[in-house]
Amino acid sequence: MWGDLDSLGIVFYPRYYEWIDACGHLFFDAIHLNLGELWVERKLLFGLVETSCRYVRPGRYDDRIRITTRIRELGLKTVLLEHDIRHAKDNERMVLGLEKRICMDVTRPRELKGVPIPDDIRAIFQKAMA
Amino acid sequence: MWGDLDSLGIVFYPRYYEWIDACGHLFFDAIHLNLGELWVERKLLFGLVETSCRYVRPGRYDDRIRITTRIRELGLKTVLLEHDIRHAKDNERMVLGLEKRICMDVTRPRELKGVPIPDDIRAIFQKAMA
Amino acid sequence: MWGDLDSLGIVFYPRYYEWIDACGHLFFDAIHLNLGELWVERKLLFGLVETSCRYVRPGRYDDRIRITTRIRELGLKTVLLEHDIRHAKDNERMVLGLEKRICMDVTRPRELKGVPIPDDIRAIFQKAMA
Amino acid sequence: MWGDLDSLGIVFYPRYYEWIDACGHLFFDAIHLNLGELWVERKLLFGLVETSCRYVRPGRYDDRIRITTRIRELGLKTVLLEHDIRHAKDNERMVLGLEKRICMDVTRPRELKGVPIPDDIRAIFQKAMA
Repeated sequence: MWGDLDSLGIVFYPRYYEWIDACGHLFFDAIHLNLGELWVERKLLFGLVETSCRYVRPGRYDDRIRITTRIRELGLKTVLLEHDIRHAKDNERMVLGLEKRICMDVTRPRELKGVPIPDDIRAIFQKAMA
Repeated sequence: MWGDLDSLGIVFYPRYYEWIDACGHLFFDAIHLNLGELWVERKLLFGLVETSCRYVRPGRYDDRIRITTRIRELGLKTVLLEHDIRHAKDNERMVLGLEKRICMDVTRPRELKGVPIPDDIRAIFQKAMA
Repeated sequence: MWGDLDSLGIVFYPRYYEWIDACGHLFFDAIHLNLGELWVERKLLFGLVETSCRYVRPGRYDDRIRITTRIRELGLKTVLLEHDIRHAKDNERMVLGLEKRICMDVTRPRELKGVPIPDDIRAIFQKAMA
Repeated sequence: MWGDLDSLGIVFYPRYYEWIDACGHLFFDAIHLNLGELWVERKLLFGLVETSCRYVRPGRYDDRIRITTRIRELGLKTVLLEHDIRHAKDNERMVLGLEKRICMDVTRPRELKGVPIPDDIRAIFQKAMA
């Protein structure tokens, strides 16, 4: 939208991170791991260790985009999400974004630390990768 | 900054609200009402009832601005903050922003409701208005 | 989404302005006044004079919302858009937002000024209000 | 500030990118390469190829931070900026951010492409790295 553009008329890049963060949350929802519930009921959070974006083609006003999110790697404590942002019209890649998230125990929010991904959640991730 | 501008090269207006919200928090700090502490120690929050901005002159890249925040009105439960955003260079007004904040009890975050401003906090506001 | 919330778990209010700004653009699109084309082809822009929001009920994580945009008032140079933001689930109002936009000639972007809304555009607005 | 935090009370990560983007612009200013002037006068822009952030310690409400920006690598067409975000109080690292920017000719904004960094600008970068 208009407010996502910079003075050159192309998308201001932190916007891509807002969108991939949102897609990360929707992805967890889609595999029935609602992050809000995980937080309230199990005191777990998948926090960020590292994020990156590679910019291939700029986004412009009124562009429709499609973001495809998948798990690229699954570690002991971490999960690497890949977000492929493409123009809806011609399917050309705009941005490739990565989010490395770590499973964190939030019982003590002042001392967030990584913990191994619980087995039931790992099974859900593995199913989503199959 | 660059990321605050739209395609016309002028400030995207939701940015002004981000800045006046931040100035509201700094204003409370300056009169020794740290909102973070109010929340943790007294379970009180000054939430928003209404906000508005009147746009007089656009902001552009590399403009330096000065935001002057004051209490314009003090009610039983509410306080009206006025944020005067001016160009630092020539002191011409850019935007006049208003935030009407209501004192809220956050002990039950799911049922936020307005409460009369406690006397000690009212005294601090009155002193700030003198 | 997650990134739209503040530490109380409710929507950070400048987000509402981002959404109503976007809806303003979509509204213009829906009545076949694409703002990007207006700018490129006719050097016209509907810039902001004043915006405001009244907050009725807070938005929270995973809430679905519906924003209904309509023209509330049409002036010589200005158009007042009303954005009614409601919870999709129970249709209860969350926020009522207003944007007063003024028709501007952008041939000289350094001296933006208001101009009467051209007759053909006025006719489109009147049709949208009927 | 308050608006930069998420529901856990820690900084929402796209904010870091907004800040490092701003610091990139300030860095160019500091070495007398004002990006606004580069764009208007020489039709050059340093656009993004890739960005990344590694998150070491979360930022919280009222934290003061210091961002130190330097050139880590200088290529034929690209320059890699490193942004070291630390807590002002104890100097502990919060985030390490990278921005790979490519020199682009913006005479035709619809076909942005990378060009070798002009010699005079390269000399300025090399001086800044010394």
